[in-house]
Amino acid sequence: MAKPHTSSDHLAAVQLLLCCTLLVAFAAPAATAASAPAPSPAKVNMTWDVEYILWAPDCQQRVMVGINGRFPGPTITARAGDVVRVTVNNKLHTEGLVIHWHGMRQVGTPWADGTASISQCAINPGDSFTYEFVADKPGTFFYHGHFGMQRAAGLYGSLIVNATAAQDEPYRRDYDGGELNVLLSDWYHENVYAQAAGLERKDKHFEWIGEPQTILINGRGQHECMLGKVTRYHRGIDRYAKTCVRGKEAKLCRDEERCLRRSECGPYCPESQCAPVVFDVEPGKTYRLRIASTTTLSALNLQVQGHELTVVEADGNPVEPFKVTDIDIYSGESYSVLLTTNQKPTFYRPGAFWITVGVRGRHPKTLPATAVLRYTNSKFDWPGSAPPQTPAWDDIDHSKSFTYRIKALKNNATTKTRPPTSAAVNRTIVMLNTQTMVGGHVRWAINNVSLALPATPYLGAYHYGLQGSAFDAAGEAPDGVPEGYNVSRPPGENEGYAARLSDRVYELPHGALVDVVLQNADMMREKASETHPWHLHGHDFWVLGYGEGRYDAGKDMARLNMDDPPLRNTVVVLPHGWTALRFVADNTGAWAFHCHIEPHLHMGMGAVFVEGVEKMRELKVPREAMMCGVISTSAAVVTPAAPRTPAPAPAP
Amino acid sequence: MAKPHTSSDHLAAVQLLLCCTLLVAFAAPAATAASAPAPSPAKVNMTWDVEYILWAPDCQQRVMVGINGRFPGPTITARAGDVVRVTVNNKLHTEGLVIHWHGMRQVGTPWADGTASISQCAINPGDSFTYEFVADKPGTFFYHGHFGMQRAAGLYGSLIVNATAAQDEPYRRDYDGGELNVLLSDWYHENVYAQAAGLERKDKHFEWIGEPQTILINGRGQHECMLGKVTRYHRGIDRYAKTCVRGKEAKLCRDEERCLRRSECGPYCPESQCAPVVFDVEPGKTYRLRIASTTTLSALNLQVQGHELTVVEADGNPVEPFKVTDIDIYSGESYSVLLTTNQKPTFYRPGAFWITVGVRGRHPKTLPATAVLRYTNSKFDWPGSAPPQTPAWDDIDHSKSFTYRIKALKNNATTKTRPPTSAAVNRTIVMLNTQTMVGGHVRWAINNVSLALPATPYLGAYHYGLQGSAFDAAGEAPDGVPEGYNVSRPPGENEGYAARLSDRVYELPHGALVDVVLQNADMMREKASETHPWHLHGHDFWVLGYGEGRYDAGKDMARLNMDDPPLRNTVVVLPHGWTALRFVADNTGAWAFHCHIEPHLHMGMGAVFVEGVEKMRELKVPREAMMCGVISTSAAVVTPAAPRTPAPAPAP
Repeated sequence: MAKPHTSSDHLAAVQLLLCCTLLVAFAAPAATAASAPAPSPAKVNMTWDVEYILWAPDCQQRVMVGINGRFPGPTITARAGDVVRVTVNNKLHTEGLVIHWHGMRQVGTPWADGTASISQCAINPGDSFTYEFVADKPGTFFYHGHFGMQRAAGLYGSLIVNATAAQDEPYRRDYDGGELNVLLSDWYHENVYAQAAGLERKDKHFEWIGEPQTILINGRGQHECMLGKVTRYHRGIDRYAKTCVRGKEAKLCRDEERCLRRSECGPYCPESQCAPVVFDVEPGKTYRLRIASTTTLSALNLQVQGHELTVVEADGNPVEPFKVTDIDIYSGESYSVLLTTNQKPTFYRPGAFWITVGVRGRHPKTLPATAVLRYTNSKFDWPGSAPPQTPAWDDIDHSKSFTYRIKALKNNATTKTRPPTSAAVNRTIVMLNTQTMVGGHVRWAINNVSLALPATPYLGAYHYGLQGSAFDAAGEAPDGVPEGYNVSRPPGENEGYAARLSDRVYELPHGALVDVVLQNADMMREKASETHPWHLHGHDFWVLGYGEGRYDAGKDMARLNMDDPPLRNTVVVLPHGWTALRFVADNTGAWAFHCHIEPHLHMGMGAVFVEGVEKMRELKVPREAMMCGVISTSAAVVTPAAPRTPAPAPAP
Repeated sequence: MAKPHTSSDHLAAVQLLLCCTLLVAFAAPAATAASAPAPSPAKVNMTWDVEYILWAPDCQQRVMVGINGRFPGPTITARAGDVVRVTVNNKLHTEGLVIHWHGMRQVGTPWADGTASISQCAINPGDSFTYEFVADKPGTFFYHGHFGMQRAAGLYGSLIVNATAAQDEPYRRDYDGGELNVLLSDWYHENVYAQAAGLERKDKHFEWIGEPQTILINGRGQHECMLGKVTRYHRGIDRYAKTCVRGKEAKLCRDEERCLRRSECGPYCPESQCAPVVFDVEPGKTYRLRIASTTTLSALNLQVQGHELTVVEADGNPVEPFKVTDIDIYSGESYSVLLTTNQKPTFYRPGAFWITVGVRGRHPKTLPATAVLRYTNSKFDWPGSAPPQTPAWDDIDHSKSFTYRIKALKNNATTKTRPPTSAAVNRTIVMLNTQTMVGGHVRWAINNVSLALPATPYLGAYHYGLQGSAFDAAGEAPDGVPEGYNVSRPPGENEGYAARLSDRVYELPHGALVDVVLQNADMMREKASETHPWHLHGHDFWVLGYGEGRYDAGKDMARLNMDDPPLRNTVVVLPHGWTALRFVADNTGAWAFHCHIEPHLHMGMGAVFVEGVEKMRELKVPREAMMCGVISTSAAVVTPAAPRTPAPAPAP
């Protein structure tokens, strides 16, 4: 009954295109340069049923969007160059869905990027669609829903791409203990439909989603509970903390249902959906922790009790290693850190150590999450001590210090990381981020435009030449900050500033060198400005620099880092600051660029880059991915078949 | 940005078809016979934004599916013969939607019946669709979502069709006071996504939706509160009742927010979303109460303190008037009752009288709902007495007594109601209703088949000749109860009985006279059987009779009521009983026939009748209503347009 769709017909074309792109990339360094795929790419095949599940990720049962009956979704493990092929069966009854493969550049397969309204039509309820793309580079990635607020509903999982022997990661020989996967997220008890309704209420009835109830590690948390011996500090930040697990109690519970549904701390069945995560490690080894964050809202900080962390990878790109006691991680980012199990057991840390994940940047109403790093020679399963404290939520200098230390790996044999010089830049887009009112609604806007996505996917509109009817193609989205706009004052005090809804895009010629400057500003509440992690689809970009206040090209451009800027796919713009990035628009397609905070995107905080308009018609776009909106009824796309064959006679 | 779709191109064809059908109907009496439309039909035009709203129908705020920012949806008022034209803008972000016009027969407009998977594709998020159909007969109707469990999410409203002067209703001159609209429903605090997830859990993890939290009258109720002076009886059935409003306190509250969110009884702002409904009436007049029920689950009973009710209409058909003290009403049914305001005020009923709506047929864990009938000469706004008691929930004889009294109006000048004789019956379908397990899931099945709807709408599949690829067209759904099945024993004890999922349909030749016998049976829990209200789309049918135990054609057929069977669109099959009905399959289209209990349909309790297969190709089906599933990608339907025009140059 489900309609099986595949894009396998397009695989040959995809691989050919990818090959060509790779050749180009190696001949002339570009932001989409990738590891060479193995000569004969393997296939990673998966079939997913996406459906509602009742689940208790933090010990309270709610409805979630699960995959194959579980949350979080299955971890995809591939090798660089493999073809990943995931058939998605939509069993959500009434909701469409798409899956975005966060960090995959989709060179030659822009229709597989999984962004509703941009790269494809949502997969209808009861229908199926097969994503097929090349895992083009090694690194730590994840996947998630990209339609409405379905990511916040639990539709996500890990995507790990290992290096091939031929294309080894530069830090591969620096760890001998193996890898630990740490997928971070936050969780709300209110469902996303109610959240969306609250965000759209007008004027004073606006209801912000608030802080999450629970931080999850690999999909598990403990609502209103904090594990470990709670110290005065922890009690201070948390009026909710109740009781705590200690010693071996976690194994004493045998009643699964009771485990699943309890909202107080206490014993957890190891098999419970909300059992604390325990990582078992051998002493005297070095491990790679793959850490990714797909939070709805929260900026996080992770530390491991008593252990130093060496950062080696950011968003699938090698960075110059540096040591820290904790790392900041924003929604949409991923890191690999190396950790050596070199701690001697003590009475309070008997070979078991807390991993703490706390909230940063917003006054934390959410308890830190905790997991356990347990040496195989530990005498106890649990540390007897208090979990370490993450930095104060408002210690912005700590955040800056970490962010600014991220640089491209020097002498990187496998990837070229130095960007083309500024003289070669074809286009600069300065993007003013403002929170503002549009028609009585609280919205986020970029240069006065608040993104309202159309019913017809842009990629299909361009492919079929239907730009004029699919969206507002009468002009481009605006390129720069309105003249004289004072970023230190709220939008209401900037005369003549009025944002509007729009679905206009930025059109970038194929191969253009593009600079984007994200410009933060005062929010509607005066003297407030938030951190926004911006994620670009279809590309990595060089992060050229950060600054305070208003970006001044004449002064600031000369100070940009042209020496060792890191490649990323996600970057933050800090409160009242700016961030400059550069990329080569060499990936034909329609690519979202947006704040990765789920409600911010929902409120219009995004933009769409269309690259290679002139090449769009030639793309081998799977027809079934585009049959919605104006495309499905356009005579320019399809004509009624004639003559029709007679209807088959009814079966006897 | 939304794509405006209309089916207005098809209106001329629709009206022509309708005219023809009406001519036929008057020439030869048939179940779809209708009042003649006025010579120049008026148009009732509406535009609806369907969107999530935060609403407090029972004083607790939840997310609902609202229309134009409100719940319930706007009341549609038309005159018989009017063209109703409703443009639906889907603003639900990720959910498709359809609207079913319950009781409208859609003669010539089967694509406007609003059943996803059957009559059309769901309207995509961000898209629009215009329903256009003739309100073909006077009566009391309603509309609601018919995709997943969206009706239970609040997507419904009233649809009132008044008689034209030329086609007066036979009881029109029996009331001089006007009309009161009473739309009944039930409300759950758990969202429908979680409810659906619970219903689909396997084996012992199955979670039934349970009883509703609140009964709503015109979309308003008071959770865990019972208005009026609570008596020992009411306290007995309700451990939740807290405090009560008395006298004029309902007007004292001025704090709307406090009103909206309170969960205890007490003062309600008249403007609150959960304020009790008050019907103001003049003394000494006769009123028509239009009562319809769109409950998710509950069978209801309504009574008006101190007033007799005269039943005159059922599902838009005149019935032989009869007097009752209370009426039963099942989900999907509608009645008109006449009420004369002839009561003298007393101290406890100072011209204000309780209307009580209680639950029937299931052990009531839900408090009765109450509204007030207030005479304009009342000294107080509220009665000082206890609300009347509805009949005991398990008094099945009371239900039978009411149901059996409903007969067609004798000497009805405007509609012919006598059915064709049994000798003329072309096909008899006996439908065994069983609750059973299918693949570890609790399901409802009809003759061993549990309906699983396809991704492609049947109407489109037949229209485009794609039956073979759209659903299982290798045979029809089974016609009768399996040989030897013992309806008094649970399915597990009936050897060889094994239900399966299927999307097979019943194909009925155009004009066939069809008998359907609904056969109830023992549920999985032995010695239990439930009442199911079955609703047929596209038709009224004659209710020929009811019986106990297993239907025996040889014995029972002769006892059917061929004299004055009422016309209905919804009928109940009572526990361990059977119900026989008859209709003329003269309405080309694909029509749902299903239990109107929302979770029962979701669990497979339905069937699809396809009528006039041979005429399907000729239907002027709006293309935009069918562009999903296999239709959107079938080369038999559409071919790529060639040659393509070049893409427009990007705007400067």
